[in-house]
Amino acid sequence: MKHLTLNEVAEFLRSHDDYTILTHCRPDGDTVGSAAALCHALRCIGKQAYLSENLDFRPTQRKNRGDLIDPTLHSTVIAVDLAAPGLFPPPFSGHVDLCIDHHGTNSEYADAGYVNSDYAACGEIIYELLKVMEIPVDKYLADAIYLAVSTDTGCFKYSNTSPNSLRCAADMMEFGADTVYMNRVLFNEKSRARIALDVYLGQNIRFFGGGRIAICTLPLCEKQRLGVNEDDMDSIASFPRKVEGVQISAMLRELDNGDCKISLRAESRLWDGSKICAQLGGGGHPSASGATVAGATLEEGCAAILGAIASVTGLSVEEDV
Amino acid sequence: MKHLTLNEVAEFLRSHDDYTILTHCRPDGDTVGSAAALCHALRCIGKQAYLSENLDFRPTQRKNRGDLIDPTLHSTVIAVDLAAPGLFPPPFSGHVDLCIDHHGTNSEYADAGYVNSDYAACGEIIYELLKVMEIPVDKYLADAIYLAVSTDTGCFKYSNTSPNSLRCAADMMEFGADTVYMNRVLFNEKSRARIALDVYLGQNIRFFGGGRIAICTLPLCEKQRLGVNEDDMDSIASFPRKVEGVQISAMLRELDNGDCKISLRAESRLWDGSKICAQLGGGGHPSASGATVAGATLEEGCAAILGAIASVTGLSVEEDV
Repeated sequence: MKHLTLNEVAEFLRSHDDYTILTHCRPDGDTVGSAAALCHALRCIGKQAYLSENLDFRPTQRKNRGDLIDPTLHSTVIAVDLAAPGLFPPPFSGHVDLCIDHHGTNSEYADAGYVNSDYAACGEIIYELLKVMEIPVDKYLADAIYLAVSTDTGCFKYSNTSPNSLRCAADMMEFGADTVYMNRVLFNEKSRARIALDVYLGQNIRFFGGGRIAICTLPLCEKQRLGVNEDDMDSIASFPRKVEGVQISAMLRELDNGDCKISLRAESRLWDGSKICAQLGGGGHPSASGATVAGATLEEGCAAILGAIASVTGLSVEEDV
Repeated sequence: MKHLTLNEVAEFLRSHDDYTILTHCRPDGDTVGSAAALCHALRCIGKQAYLSENLDFRPTQRKNRGDLIDPTLHSTVIAVDLAAPGLFPPPFSGHVDLCIDHHGTNSEYADAGYVNSDYAACGEIIYELLKVMEIPVDKYLADAIYLAVSTDTGCFKYSNTSPNSLRCAADMMEFGADTVYMNRVLFNEKSRARIALDVYLGQNIRFFGGGRIAICTLPLCEKQRLGVNEDDMDSIASFPRKVEGVQISAMLRELDNGDCKISLRAESRLWDGSKICAQLGGGGHPSASGATVAGATLEEGCAAILGAIASVTGLSVEEDV
């Protein structure tokens, strides 16, 4: 992959036309906001541009935007916030001309690209690009970029939040982003099923090692009984980690295929959770990591992760009474 | 009260000495952070300065700072983030020389003051003052001001968050504020009692008017059984409002004296909650308001608030099945 500067990306965008913009599969706010902003910006400078999926980035307006197209029909393909071909939005499997991303793990699948992992969100890069291209930020762009940046930083609460993230959001507010509504819908609202799931998890949380370790398990039958979908499951991995005094937490879920999926969260100033998950063939970051134990019941998964925690940290994993 | 400019506040601070800085009673992060920052800044320019209470603003260090003093022993009294004498920290009841505040409702109790309700947090005003006085922001000041601004904006999620709040926080990050730790402790951590309270509320939430109204009630005996303290109760007023589709929510608590305290939350683009609470002799803001019904049981309080909602909004208040 040829590494471009932002000025070279701008030149690429000005000298091509007929764009398809790819988001990653199972799109999140960053990829959707970044793609919608880029698509809109290209149209602002007179280009033909389409999104790879029928994306609607605005929580305020959920109707069909009518942009659904076949990516193979267009000549220039751009991927945003997309780290590797395994994350292409199905059924796309073609050639990518340009990639704009903030993942340090980007596999350099595109012909050319701008990848900078200093940015907490890909949306921050899109904003830098708009400045380089001197494209004024209208309300649509402000909403899209705020969505991108706020999502990837957990509304500026996650540890990846940088001064640049906060200043980018400040600019978007001034450009008219509907931050009040987005903050409510994205970060404050829970479905009734999610409330029921929180009740279940709160009732079933178990503590080990004098309260330093917390584990929640969710059997498939309970997931079905509570009527929770994958959206509801969003962020439950952090549920047991929120409890005061907990340094390491694990959320264990029984999967449809009978495997046990473990999501580990750790106080990264004390422990490297990725080393714990590596004991079970998984991996990730010090603070957020995971592993899947094939064919294990939740009890077996629980024993496995407690063993890995004991082995890596030396902490007692005796259950609290 | 004589209204000063920030330059005049700076001149006041340079020309006086021997300061006591008052926070409001039941101190929150904004008053504590603002007071600690101002105290530290005054010491930086060679002044004697003390806090009115034994405040420790740093979640990372909870030990006694040894600053507890008798405010009457010092000559110059400054109040920060303190709207009215009713909020003086007990036992203080004396004379206030200077007031620095962001409450539009400030009762002008001080001899002189700078009050500007354009700021989401009083800490933002303290930062402006540091700039005017050309006092460099060290890590202590950065931690204190970040605490102030992040607390009053709900970590930049509340509707009062402004571009200035975000830019102030960005500057504090660059000046070394320990934002990762503060965000976790302030905005992500729950006590075990609070988890149990969430379970209770999640199990007992009731819906009315086709899911547009949600009500939770907390009897005194349940509060005692769950072992929750006032800290745990923090922000539970918003619990029923989080549920998808809810436009108006009420949290009803039985108080020690047998009164029923109602905290109302409303979608302010649709309804003015303060008008609903005014029906019961209360008041507040369109999005957050409250009332206390003397001697009412929770069921009576529930009937009263539903009646007020029906009367003001015309919504059906029939309970959902």
